[in-house]
Amino acid sequence: MAEHLSQSELDYPFKLLEYLNGFRISKAIFSACELGLFDLLLQSQKSLNAAEVAQKLGTSEDGIERLLDVLVAIEIVDVEVVHGTAHYSSTDVANLYLAKTSPKSLHDLIIYNSQTIYPLWNNLVDAVRDGKNQNEKTFGLPSEEIFSAIYRSEEEMLKFMGLMNSTWAIDGHDIVTAFDLSRFKSIIDLGGCSGALARELAKEYPSSTVTVLDLPAVVQTAQQHFAQQDDTIAFQEGDFFEGEIPPADLYILARIIHDWKEEKNLKLLRKIHTACHPGGGVLIAEALLFENRRGPTTVQMFSLNMLVQTEGKEHPPSHYTRLLTDAGFRDVQVCRTGKSYDAILALK
Amino acid sequence: MAEHLSQSELDYPFKLLEYLNGFRISKAIFSACELGLFDLLLQSQKSLNAAEVAQKLGTSEDGIERLLDVLVAIEIVDVEVVHGTAHYSSTDVANLYLAKTSPKSLHDLIIYNSQTIYPLWNNLVDAVRDGKNQNEKTFGLPSEEIFSAIYRSEEEMLKFMGLMNSTWAIDGHDIVTAFDLSRFKSIIDLGGCSGALARELAKEYPSSTVTVLDLPAVVQTAQQHFAQQDDTIAFQEGDFFEGEIPPADLYILARIIHDWKEEKNLKLLRKIHTACHPGGGVLIAEALLFENRRGPTTVQMFSLNMLVQTEGKEHPPSHYTRLLTDAGFRDVQVCRTGKSYDAILALK
Repeated sequence: MAEHLSQSELDYPFKLLEYLNGFRISKAIFSACELGLFDLLLQSQKSLNAAEVAQKLGTSEDGIERLLDVLVAIEIVDVEVVHGTAHYSSTDVANLYLAKTSPKSLHDLIIYNSQTIYPLWNNLVDAVRDGKNQNEKTFGLPSEEIFSAIYRSEEEMLKFMGLMNSTWAIDGHDIVTAFDLSRFKSIIDLGGCSGALARELAKEYPSSTVTVLDLPAVVQTAQQHFAQQDDTIAFQEGDFFEGEIPPADLYILARIIHDWKEEKNLKLLRKIHTACHPGGGVLIAEALLFENRRGPTTVQMFSLNMLVQTEGKEHPPSHYTRLLTDAGFRDVQVCRTGKSYDAILALK
Repeated sequence: MAEHLSQSELDYPFKLLEYLNGFRISKAIFSACELGLFDLLLQSQKSLNAAEVAQKLGTSEDGIERLLDVLVAIEIVDVEVVHGTAHYSSTDVANLYLAKTSPKSLHDLIIYNSQTIYPLWNNLVDAVRDGKNQNEKTFGLPSEEIFSAIYRSEEEMLKFMGLMNSTWAIDGHDIVTAFDLSRFKSIIDLGGCSGALARELAKEYPSSTVTVLDLPAVVQTAQQHFAQQDDTIAFQEGDFFEGEIPPADLYILARIIHDWKEEKNLKLLRKIHTACHPGGGVLIAEALLFENRRGPTTVQMFSLNMLVQTEGKEHPPSHYTRLLTDAGFRDVQVCRTGKSYDAILALK
């Protein structure tokens, strides 16, 4: 996925201009999601003109027409011009990833990016200058307690949990099948949030028990908003930094390590090592940097995102290997999935 | 430059995720410009490590290192890792387009996008819903008087003029050579701002006189901040909507029409037609949409930008042809440059 800036870029900077315009493409897609456009197009039996879309979504006709035309240009919406009037319809990509009701929907990830991360990145200069997150400048929240900021209201908690849900809807299967985990009969997903990754584990390894351990408020919200009929996973309230870690064969740490400083992570991994059954292990799911610093682009950006929003960062595999070894684990194996998130397995 | 969302996107939405992350790439480049990174790398005789860059720019080492690594991933900065330490250096593309001192610098365009347009687009949902610009919600400025918003302070005026200057630094030559304009001996650039496009005209057509007519405050700022030694162009204070338009052979309207509603544009073009010498003409420089609404992507986005910031929009060639014909002009010729801005010539 590397983007090569070729020599011809020196004649005219097409690719650079595309980068500079990137924020507009993001916000166009974000706004269409927020307005419910993709849900309307999916549900509609026929293609719709701008006036019809405007009427159904309660927007201006002119505004929605321009937004639709941007989405046509990037091939997320289709158009047919009949007798001078444009008729818009959805595409397979939009139906699968942008409509709210799709099982692979990125809708909640998009809402979170639009309403929380986009404004945070408006203060990127300050984040780089001060070397710390911008929760205070952006939202008036203390920068030290990152999850107090992320979970500052029930609405924000729901949004963040939706973000996690969206991610594992598209990346979860690759994570749980990166290694054969069938020998681990009891699995605890530490900080498992809405339970989306845990459900992928339970589906892939039906003879294992899978438990999500998370803060009481998170567990309650998960059970209220993200529970499924005949749910195959259990929830347990707890605080894996401050409280007990129950014994198990396998612990999942999915997008936990990248939030925190090294010392805190090492302490956590040692505590997990102590609680872990002999022969058990820990599975870390994170986006992995290349050792040579040249990418992947997405992961370098995630690392900058961690600066803007948390106290952690992304790392190359060697960092996790060292951390796990220091905590007493052995046989560290790394699997790059080729998607956004990768997997690391280590044994006790 | 069309981006095709292929069938494989249905297996995993790589391109869609790239679009969703677009705002981060934009802001990373914007922030590096704001911090003066590209100027430092250009001026430095040797590659620099993150600690050295941090010290010279007055930033945190951790923050600048992550920003540098994003820029490495998108190949705008180069890196070499020596004994475990990353040493960063500039690239030809960064030196040519991102360093402030380059004649083709996009620095000022970037500052304007970062500080004015990025926050405006945070209110895109409201712009689409209400069908009007978001100067009020974003900056507390009245939405009716768009240039009172754009020129709300000397600092903002300078930034906007810098934006125009940057654009014509890379697109000006294509605009002035889209047609042979040598037969027009007196040329007036209406709303010519800093004079960048006028200087391109004067350079290409040395036997023509080129005058920029703009609001008094704009002319004064242009002369104070953008004047060149042995300047080949003249400036004249005026208001081409409210005041007189002096006679000339050729009038330039570069990125003027797209700011305003049709009625106002038609009135302006009729006024220009009246003032124009027989055999003279008008050259319009705008980004042109395709007639079939399927792009170009950049222009669809510009049109959405006009919604967020002004009262105008972008159009396909047929719109300009009709407008010019209605105003009395004939022989309308359209030239797509293949770059960001196109040219339309019409004769009296």
